[in-house]
Amino acid sequence: MNGVESLARIRVVLSRTSHPGNIGACARAMKTMGLSQLWLVAPHTFPHADALARATGASDLLDRAKVVDSLDEALGDCVMAAALTARRRDLAAPVSLPREAAAELIGATAGGEVALVFGNESHGLSNDELLRCQLPVTIPTNPHYSSLNLGSAVQVMSYELRLAALSPEAPPPGLLTPASLDEIEHMMAHFERAMVNSGFLDPHAPRRLMPRLRRLFARTRLEREEIAVLRGMLAALEPKVD
Amino acid sequence: MNGVESLARIRVVLSRTSHPGNIGACARAMKTMGLSQLWLVAPHTFPHADALARATGASDLLDRAKVVDSLDEALGDCVMAAALTARRRDLAAPVSLPREAAAELIGATAGGEVALVFGNESHGLSNDELLRCQLPVTIPTNPHYSSLNLGSAVQVMSYELRLAALSPEAPPPGLLTPASLDEIEHMMAHFERAMVNSGFLDPHAPRRLMPRLRRLFARTRLEREEIAVLRGMLAALEPKVD
Repeated sequence: MNGVESLARIRVVLSRTSHPGNIGACARAMKTMGLSQLWLVAPHTFPHADALARATGASDLLDRAKVVDSLDEALGDCVMAAALTARRRDLAAPVSLPREAAAELIGATAGGEVALVFGNESHGLSNDELLRCQLPVTIPTNPHYSSLNLGSAVQVMSYELRLAALSPEAPPPGLLTPASLDEIEHMMAHFERAMVNSGFLDPHAPRRLMPRLRRLFARTRLEREEIAVLRGMLAALEPKVD
Repeated sequence: MNGVESLARIRVVLSRTSHPGNIGACARAMKTMGLSQLWLVAPHTFPHADALARATGASDLLDRAKVVDSLDEALGDCVMAAALTARRRDLAAPVSLPREAAAELIGATAGGEVALVFGNESHGLSNDELLRCQLPVTIPTNPHYSSLNLGSAVQVMSYELRLAALSPEAPPPGLLTPASLDEIEHMMAHFERAMVNSGFLDPHAPRRLMPRLRRLFARTRLEREEIAVLRGMLAALEPKVD
């Protein structure tokens, strides 16, 4: 998928946003760069006059915004999700810069819908939310003052996505048939079940087995067929409960 | 000049800003990227509580902001000025993209102070203000909705400046001793005087002689010594008024 049409396949997902004014500012930032799909996960207050006021000419994005209860609902049919994070984490997949991430996301639109996830203004994304996304992205900021406004973060990422979409360079090759995030989640659940049933994973002392596994698969960008192979293997190995 | 120190030589100049809240948002956007010098040309309302509210942790930039009456006062001691503009103009110097402009501005900090000028929220920069700047810059936007918020425009440019300052690539070579914008203005005044006195320029029907001349010199990035040569030549050619 090339050119600005690829932008139509990118959804901006705002998770648990506190201030409706910021939602409006994000809609405006998106539209200036040609993005159109806004998803809101459990927004604190929406719709709201502040959102409309800050959106100015981008209120159509607010009208069409999809409001859902959980991040999984927003990501289910996507083939890739990137997550904005200011945090460095022990086990983190290598963190991308906005420019690299934008090229990767635009490339991934060849395989389907793609998500870019932004957390709450104060707390960012929860660990659990971060683990749902394969591509952590950090906008480089002043180490002494990294308080990027939510609308500003969306603006910078949308700008990089537009540049990447318009770039004459070929996007990085997409996967043949990338797995959807729903398929990946079902596989993760399958792994967990198999590990618990086998006694390898104690649900009362899970250590960090599942997060480690998640990060491994986040890096690999699974294809649908690979998931079939892995799940087939799991099914074959699972202890028979009878 | 290399690294983040070059950012200390860049001033963001906001000309005739209408809404004080936007001034605060600009200060915050600047500080997240390590910029610190804010200049305000004839702001409509400043200081103001809205500016403080939107600046959050960047109020120190507002405290130290320099408020002046004219763009010339803000640019006088700079060696280069870039101007954000959404407009395409007949006679315009080639318009730069943010990334190219950022590299050029960071390179120019080797020679002295550098300015990045943003116009009023509704009208942008006047023709006269644009002519004072050598480097027109346009942020690429959705052609159907290009209404970039002032704070967002400052955010995108500040982000590109930070990336350029941190880039391991050598910045483009600076001039040996770049002329200051004051020196260029004095030279322009000298040109105008000489052309009027010679009868070549009719002050009552000036055509576009001065704008053309300005744009020519804007592209060339004058050195101090070249100005001395040009003005020496003018002085030698000027008709003697006695």
